[in-house]
Amino acid sequence: MSDKGKNWVKAEDVARLAGVSRSAVSRTFTPGASVAEKTRVKVMQAAEQLGYQVNIIARTMNTGSSNFIGIVTAGFDNPFRSKLLSPLVHQLALHGFMPLLMNADDPEQLAPSLKQLLSYHVAGVIITSGAPPLSLAEEYLERKIPVTLINRHAELNGCDRVASDNEQGMNLTAEYCRKRGWNNIGFIGEDESNYSTRERFHALTASAPDLNLSPIFVPGGGYEAGRLAAITLRDCQVLICATDMLALGAIDGLRSLTGDKAPPAVIGFDDIPQADWDPYHLTTIQQDTDGLAQQAVDLLVTRIAQFDLPSRHRAVPVKLIIRESA
Amino acid sequence: MSDKGKNWVKAEDVARLAGVSRSAVSRTFTPGASVAEKTRVKVMQAAEQLGYQVNIIARTMNTGSSNFIGIVTAGFDNPFRSKLLSPLVHQLALHGFMPLLMNADDPEQLAPSLKQLLSYHVAGVIITSGAPPLSLAEEYLERKIPVTLINRHAELNGCDRVASDNEQGMNLTAEYCRKRGWNNIGFIGEDESNYSTRERFHALTASAPDLNLSPIFVPGGGYEAGRLAAITLRDCQVLICATDMLALGAIDGLRSLTGDKAPPAVIGFDDIPQADWDPYHLTTIQQDTDGLAQQAVDLLVTRIAQFDLPSRHRAVPVKLIIRESA
Repeated sequence: MSDKGKNWVKAEDVARLAGVSRSAVSRTFTPGASVAEKTRVKVMQAAEQLGYQVNIIARTMNTGSSNFIGIVTAGFDNPFRSKLLSPLVHQLALHGFMPLLMNADDPEQLAPSLKQLLSYHVAGVIITSGAPPLSLAEEYLERKIPVTLINRHAELNGCDRVASDNEQGMNLTAEYCRKRGWNNIGFIGEDESNYSTRERFHALTASAPDLNLSPIFVPGGGYEAGRLAAITLRDCQVLICATDMLALGAIDGLRSLTGDKAPPAVIGFDDIPQADWDPYHLTTIQQDTDGLAQQAVDLLVTRIAQFDLPSRHRAVPVKLIIRESA
Repeated sequence: MSDKGKNWVKAEDVARLAGVSRSAVSRTFTPGASVAEKTRVKVMQAAEQLGYQVNIIARTMNTGSSNFIGIVTAGFDNPFRSKLLSPLVHQLALHGFMPLLMNADDPEQLAPSLKQLLSYHVAGVIITSGAPPLSLAEEYLERKIPVTLINRHAELNGCDRVASDNEQGMNLTAEYCRKRGWNNIGFIGEDESNYSTRERFHALTASAPDLNLSPIFVPGGGYEAGRLAAITLRDCQVLICATDMLALGAIDGLRSLTGDKAPPAVIGFDDIPQADWDPYHLTTIQQDTDGLAQQAVDLLVTRIAQFDLPSRHRAVPVKLIIRESA
């Protein structure tokens, strides 16, 4: 793994060709550093000619700062998390940060992985939904490494979080049910330790004390869980699901039933691409993934600049998308 | 972005507490380096007590090598690519490598992104399907940075590639069609510049000269493209699709038709999670994503160790999964 034999162009080579000092090259490539325009042009021409790239590793060593941000996520194959990953990577790049991706699928690997991030002197960490234990966030905060949570809860000093406005989402949902005259309502969630399920269920009970609510919580969530839960709740007028994956499973579960009674309507939460496929046309609460990513990166960047801000929480507005399923 | 005020524990702190030299600490954390067992135990105890983490950035500077691997991919929200990402990250971690993720969704951002990877002195690059221009792979190879391609083609010196065995997949498909007595066959692919579409189409025509084949190529691919293409090919007995996303769209397109004629059977390629959902139960060629990831990382790691190997190509076996759609 040695770099020996690799044709890395060094800042010294650029300096020699441009006929300027090594430090002039360094200043040319340091955002905000002062350098005469004539020198800058010479350096850029020499750099272009030689194919020079700034060595970020060297810069990190020299300045003591890194531009790595850890993204800790679980389940790349969850369509909602994949949908969130793109704008996150994009927003980080706009601020000059490079994401280091940690897959939290395997709980046993999680602690070593999060510790490993420390080896890269990450400037900050974004933790998305899933189940990483928050004690690990504390370890970062102790070292004054900013942590931003997306769609998760934590009361940790110096920890910021951004979440879709679950309260608004459930208000929209309850209001829609009233308008349609549905008051016999099933709720399908993941297990209650899951932040989004818990928040959405509490928001629903709070905004709909007049409605008759039968909840089911299925550990793990997902398509198959929704499919089975829906069959148990077949006598409701509408099934409100904590995620779209549960809702798509629910629609298929209801479709598998035979009988002369009309199946319940189904409402989801997320708006994943599959929600609009023909067999589903799912009515759902759309999360604004671009907005979540933008707010998360903004919170992180401002805390990287000043660690000792009070904890902040931002709610990102959601939308009710009405399709054929309800 | 300064590290000032951050509580990074330094190797010097560990050395002081353990009562050993700075170099003994360094050797303890360098794989393969020689250090007395008694010293090693003292260092590990002190490191544990202080919460010391190896500084990978510093090590990279000292050894001139980095353990970063660039992964260039397009479309995180494509279920097949998401399915491949997990085992790739996992296999790289097993070899002590850290992936740097580059999203190639935006063609205009691609060239700057790939150049940016150079700033991190990446030890190697993995390019998955999608459309990054291969001239950029050449730029890496010129600098003796190994490049491995997954499900892509290139005749570049020193470039390795691994792909699912498209020939085997299309043999299995053609054989299955013959067994079912289907000889009026539609083929739905992305545009012909797409490697997987081109390979699979050629493999199908080669393995089935006896069959009557009507192909359609829909730029961009995806669910909606499959949906529309299937309607055009409604008179075939079976539709063979270059990807599962096209196949799922095709099933829904055929379902939207009315008429007393039975719709064609549909066969896909990938085996994404949605393929087994109730409305689809798609018969498909299953790609072995674990196998692809393992071979890709093996090719890359061996070339990192020795850059001047001849180009290698490995085909990963596929499986025909028979479900209800065909």
